Amino acid sequence: MAVGKGDLGVLHPVPGITMAAVSAGIKKLGRLDCVVFSLGDSASVAGSFTRNAFCAAPVNLCRQHLAITSPHYFVINTGNANAGTGNAGMENARRVCLEVAELKSLPINSILPFSTGVIGEQLPVEKITDVLPEALAQLQEDNWTDCAKGIMTTDTRPKAASVQIEINGKTVTITGIAKGAGMIKPNMATMLAFVFTDAKIESQQLQAMLDIVVNKSFNRITVDSDTSTNDSCMLVASGASEVYIDENNAEFMAALNTVFVGLAHGLVRDAEGATKFVTISVEGGANQEECLRLAYTVAESPLVKTALFASDPNWGRILAATGRAGIEALDIGKVAIYLDDVCIVQDGAVAASYTEAAGQEVMEQEEITIRITLGRGSYSETVWTSDLSHEYVTINAEYRT
Amino acid sequence: MAVGKGDLGVLHPVPGITMAAVSAGIKKLGRLDCVVFSLGDSASVAGSFTRNAFCAAPVNLCRQHLAITSPHYFVINTGNANAGTGNAGMENARRVCLEVAELKSLPINSILPFSTGVIGEQLPVEKITDVLPEALAQLQEDNWTDCAKGIMTTDTRPKAASVQIEINGKTVTITGIAKGAGMIKPNMATMLAFVFTDAKIESQQLQAMLDIVVNKSFNRITVDSDTSTNDSCMLVASGASEVYIDENNAEFMAALNTVFVGLAHGLVRDAEGATKFVTISVEGGANQEECLRLAYTVAESPLVKTALFASDPNWGRILAATGRAGIEALDIGKVAIYLDDVCIVQDGAVAASYTEAAGQEVMEQEEITIRITLGRGSYSETVWTSDLSHEYVTINAEYRT
Repeated sequence: MAVGKGDLGVLHPVPGITMAAVSAGIKKLGRLDCVVFSLGDSASVAGSFTRNAFCAAPVNLCRQHLAITSPHYFVINTGNANAGTGNAGMENARRVCLEVAELKSLPINSILPFSTGVIGEQLPVEKITDVLPEALAQLQEDNWTDCAKGIMTTDTRPKAASVQIEINGKTVTITGIAKGAGMIKPNMATMLAFVFTDAKIESQQLQAMLDIVVNKSFNRITVDSDTSTNDSCMLVASGASEVYIDENNAEFMAALNTVFVGLAHGLVRDAEGATKFVTISVEGGANQEECLRLAYTVAESPLVKTALFASDPNWGRILAATGRAGIEALDIGKVAIYLDDVCIVQDGAVAASYTEAAGQEVMEQEEITIRITLGRGSYSETVWTSDLSHEYVTINAEYRT
Repeated sequence: MAVGKGDLGVLHPVPGITMAAVSAGIKKLGRLDCVVFSLGDSASVAGSFTRNAFCAAPVNLCRQHLAITSPHYFVINTGNANAGTGNAGMENARRVCLEVAELKSLPINSILPFSTGVIGEQLPVEKITDVLPEALAQLQEDNWTDCAKGIMTTDTRPKAASVQIEINGKTVTITGIAKGAGMIKPNMATMLAFVFTDAKIESQQLQAMLDIVVNKSFNRITVDSDTSTNDSCMLVASGASEVYIDENNAEFMAALNTVFVGLAHGLVRDAEGATKFVTISVEGGANQEECLRLAYTVAESPLVKTALFASDPNWGRILAATGRAGIEALDIGKVAIYLDDVCIVQDGAVAASYTEAAGQEVMEQEEITIRITLGRGSYSETVWTSDLSHEYVTINAEYRT
């Protein structure tokens, strides 16, 4: 199941960036499960990683390598997360990097490894190193779709987003891919996203820009409140366009935000078992933090999520979740709750104008906005989530991702 | 579905306390849905209520009445929570109290109302007031089972617990009933529990004792992380035994704790869709708060809960939940995780002695303990939870509780 059509649209090549997806047979023979990106010699790279204390070996190695030198290659495998694997896991991640380093005569630190899949099994290193020469031989500029497929696990479809803008008469491109459908509540990043631009951006600026856009995209979604051990989000600026950009360029930041939000929405639309794409918007809060806490409380409530799955306007569950979100001294008499434009709760109780038929009509839609106004300030926040369906239980009870 | 047999055992009468369960036909004709307790003239009463800001009208009225005078009667209805109902809801709760007050020539403040069921519909007051004379005429000392049934909603079976102890050569009895299967993460109390003793206990002492035992029973369980709008837990001391007790009486406190933990476990064993009863025990924490946060993070993880449902020793999900619990400066090298006595993670990675077969054997049990040791202090905490099954989704998608 997935919400919406999921068409990838036109995915523009990013000058300076080439890529390939091959099959290493990690879990399943013939499946694209190993992806390599070449970043060229002068790319700036910024990264945002999971805050899960049990972060995976490749996440630790990425952080180490990024601190030493500028990366030239990303190597990504699915089918195995290389998390909870101790020292052997670190050694295995290093061996993957070393293979590319030797093939391309580069220092090992210029290779960044990424893994996603089942936690707690050792990485089958040979399967990956065996196909790396083939991957390096196949690097192309326009292989986005295969690469987006090559990083999938329980995803039912690839996710990608691409925009082009004109800056100073030159075309600047931003294209990215992402994967993730379960264990999704990114905290600083999400379960693998790779975004590339040919803009020329200095590294520290690039990191600042990444932090800004991640915070309003991947850090505003939840499928099941479970932050993964492997979340990694990379932003690469190849510089090939020769257009210099910094974070004060509003046009570029808006385009970057479009790509990031598009990818983040893509994860929610393809969330495990999802039949709905739900926007939770909280307005009129006294501060950002309480708006966000309330939005997540509603977004993560199993009772709200099962009501969404059932298309049941059981708004009492939204009200109950609002009440338990821990907002200090909440005056419920000022609270209003809307399903799209239908006001269901006003002044803390069911709205006089509300009819079950009106609520039902909204709940039957595939895309729904739950809007909660608190009437105690000017802050607002938005998060995106999916429903909780039988399919979610089936996927997570019957398979190991 | 429910875990274990759920036999109620012997439910001892509590001298001074009488009760009746009748059918008011609130949602379904013939179903016991209205319960009355008579507390006698000299009972002490302590209450613990939901912290949900959208708490129900009867919860607000209970608090008001308790502040004014000592209660003589409890009136409880199921099928309607009288929550999210505004001023009309308060008026309806008052009308129920008024009916008993007039029938028994008592002040309205000596009646406490309790409601549980669907949120957001107005209470059908006449249905309840119509049957109150019948209920008052049927009050008996030994009607625990019918009353435990009469407060059920999505519960599949009644919950009750009873103990007797000897103090100074006299028998002291504690008997209680509770209901709740979904929207269970009590915060100060749970979705309706009523415990009675014939000990003689001064009101302030009784409240202190209630706070202590609630905190280690109802405040340590979660089914779906959703704190209800109607949680109310009442402790009544009729004084009929003439045995004076205070909170320093360790024997009485242990007996009281047995009843409360028994009732709290009863809710988890009968949790919506439950096929497992799971104890999450965190040891070696630097403080109580981080132990509790970690225990709840694991207990509420949809991925851990679906793995439990599948009897799948997918321990990577427990590790991932541990890592995202927000424990500051967690040294994962000191973390160990056990399924019952089987060590699955040691020194932060899969234990050398671990085999999938050993993990599988534990996971197939109906009752499982997940024990996490942090190796950074001497604090510990325990919470109890259930698994996340298809039946949970079915119950919450197909029915309005």
